[in-house]
Amino acid sequence: MRQAYHISLSNLSELGARMCGVASACLRDATVAVLEADLSLAEQVMARDVELDELRAQAEAQAFDLLALQAPVASDLRTVVSALWIVADLQRMGALAMHIAKAARRRHPQHVVPVTVRTMVERMGSVGVHLADQAGTVLMSRDVQLARSMEAEDDLMDGLQQDMYQAMLDPSWSAGVAPAVDLALLARFYERFGDHAVAVARRVVFLVTGENIGGDTTPSIPV
Amino acid sequence: MRQAYHISLSNLSELGARMCGVASACLRDATVAVLEADLSLAEQVMARDVELDELRAQAEAQAFDLLALQAPVASDLRTVVSALWIVADLQRMGALAMHIAKAARRRHPQHVVPVTVRTMVERMGSVGVHLADQAGTVLMSRDVQLARSMEAEDDLMDGLQQDMYQAMLDPSWSAGVAPAVDLALLARFYERFGDHAVAVARRVVFLVTGENIGGDTTPSIPV
Repeated sequence: MRQAYHISLSNLSELGARMCGVASACLRDATVAVLEADLSLAEQVMARDVELDELRAQAEAQAFDLLALQAPVASDLRTVVSALWIVADLQRMGALAMHIAKAARRRHPQHVVPVTVRTMVERMGSVGVHLADQAGTVLMSRDVQLARSMEAEDDLMDGLQQDMYQAMLDPSWSAGVAPAVDLALLARFYERFGDHAVAVARRVVFLVTGENIGGDTTPSIPV
Repeated sequence: MRQAYHISLSNLSELGARMCGVASACLRDATVAVLEADLSLAEQVMARDVELDELRAQAEAQAFDLLALQAPVASDLRTVVSALWIVADLQRMGALAMHIAKAARRRHPQHVVPVTVRTMVERMGSVGVHLADQAGTVLMSRDVQLARSMEAEDDLMDGLQQDMYQAMLDPSWSAGVAPAVDLALLARFYERFGDHAVAVARRVVFLVTGENIGGDTTPSIPV
């Protein structure tokens, strides 16, 4: 019984890590799609929706089986419930990557991202991809130090979001209102993607140490 | 045992309904705060953060106790796990209302909302408040018909969000880039608030009927 329990738990972590891999790949490709106005890549990203739905459904079924058949208590119970929250965060990360891909499709063949802020979008993309990859590693390794280090990288993401807003509010902004509206939302999607990756890492820290390292404190609107 | 279980479950619904009440009041006040540039009201909204944290913590503690002490299975298990998801949605609704209040504080004494789109913001606010109120009723009554009717009202919210984007992209938009960036995010916060209220209702429908009435299909970026 106990062994079956641990095998199921490790399967759950593995499903989570696979979801991180998909979310990370989706964000990487969605970022290329908006930067290069690549319609076919945008559509490839959007087609991966079902993959995440499927992985989440598998994880939820496993977690429900664990709860129903093993009736875990104390920290075992918290681990299983955390897995349910974690896969919800991971699916949301995928949905946010898809929102970015959809922007590329909607504006195609036009570009969503003006040349002046290309580098910022590239950086938001690479920070997001790295956060998702690290969340996957944390799920498998339960490496608390790595999980904590993600906080600083998420601050970097918030900083990039603010830089983007500053660029749009600057008198030198010449791209007009429409790209600003697109980019305001795009930056928000990247920032939320990072938040969810960090939320996953925080849940692991909490499970390992019992220590709650803070909630949703990211800025909500341009400073 | 069985009776204690049902009392706990109904306590859980009540905590959820109270959270709906707080989220609804926060959105109502946050909307007045952005429309009237009312700093003190914005700050009152932001202070209610702890109230939602506290209610969610209570609900989670009850749900964990139920899982640990009663080891529910089948639909009972699904009900308790759903409660955990529901309170997460409700807390997020509160956070979104606070993001709106923060926008009022950040721009004070300036107005966030140009006169030309005041009515749209007012309507998004009243639709959101109504959705939160209905979610509270659905939690207590498990009224599937009411839950389903919320879908149409959420479509109205999505339509208002699109109207807002159209207004900003129209050549007649004279307010410039900065208010457009604020409003793009504001409209997104209202729309997500509605999504979470509907997500709560959908979970109740699923618990009562076993029928899954769809996922997160709202548009992500201006059409």
